[in-house]
Amino acid sequence: MAGKERGLEELFVETLKDIYYAEKQILRSLPKMAKAATTEALRDAFMKHRDETEMQIERLERVFETMGKAARGKSCQAILGIVEESQEVMEDFKGSAALDAGILASAQAVEHYEISRYGTLVTWANQLGMKDAGKLLSQTLEEEKKTDVLLSRLAEQAVNRQAA
Amino acid sequence: MAGKERGLEELFVETLKDIYYAEKQILRSLPKMAKAATTEALRDAFMKHRDETEMQIERLERVFETMGKAARGKSCQAILGIVEESQEVMEDFKGSAALDAGILASAQAVEHYEISRYGTLVTWANQLGMKDAGKLLSQTLEEEKKTDVLLSRLAEQAVNRQAA
Repeated sequence: MAGKERGLEELFVETLKDIYYAEKQILRSLPKMAKAATTEALRDAFMKHRDETEMQIERLERVFETMGKAARGKSCQAILGIVEESQEVMEDFKGSAALDAGILASAQAVEHYEISRYGTLVTWANQLGMKDAGKLLSQTLEEEKKTDVLLSRLAEQAVNRQAA
Repeated sequence: MAGKERGLEELFVETLKDIYYAEKQILRSLPKMAKAATTEALRDAFMKHRDETEMQIERLERVFETMGKAARGKSCQAILGIVEESQEVMEDFKGSAALDAGILASAQAVEHYEISRYGTLVTWANQLGMKDAGKLLSQTLEEEKKTDVLLSRLAEQAVNRQAA
């Protein structure tokens, strides 16, 4: 399709594919983060967010459905980069007292990527008059924001524990 | 250095190098985004943020200085991925009425990456008792949050304009 014919709806679909792919990568990386974490609280938080991520993927599939499209991902370099950095931290700081702080920082980078993408998609869904899609995407946006707040709190605790 | 000896201070320095590299990539990408944008308001916003980014790089250099270290970047896959996606959007939607919306979405992904990194660095600087560093990083964090709010407003306007 030539540039001129590509409108907001197509941009919406491209971004939907991007976050669909990203969520699947995140689903795979969360158990690894949980396994590497050194406290129960952190492991629980990651596994709970893993379950939430499954629900978020289902919601994205429903958004595709409202558009009469099959759910399809599209390779997303941004999330691949963020996940790669998180693996680096887990390797480099294995056994270090700062490991949990490092994992949490990576997890927050992931959350912020998602918050920006879902924020954008909600704006566009509303503009396109896609009520049901907008609602589904808003639900996930609110969950991601809550997760970010929880991770911030765990991050404070992790650095305080290291200092103790 | 083996894992066990690597503590929070080293994690802080690694993350500082990551965002220092990221800011330099952003400094190069903002004029490209400004050039691609189709409205004066958007071009101005990107060029203003380019100037702000220069200041933010200087602040990072001062943080390195407070630690008696030379400022050095470290390749950051996350920002490279985000910038690559923004270039893709600029190519794919060139000439489209949705181009500005796409550029703005990319810019917000950049802002959110920065917000997560600076948020983390501020927490760690405070924990490490690095008062001056914490202050410098907080200043930038506040600027990035303000930029994100401004971009959200411009994004609403861009999609409304397309609909008009």
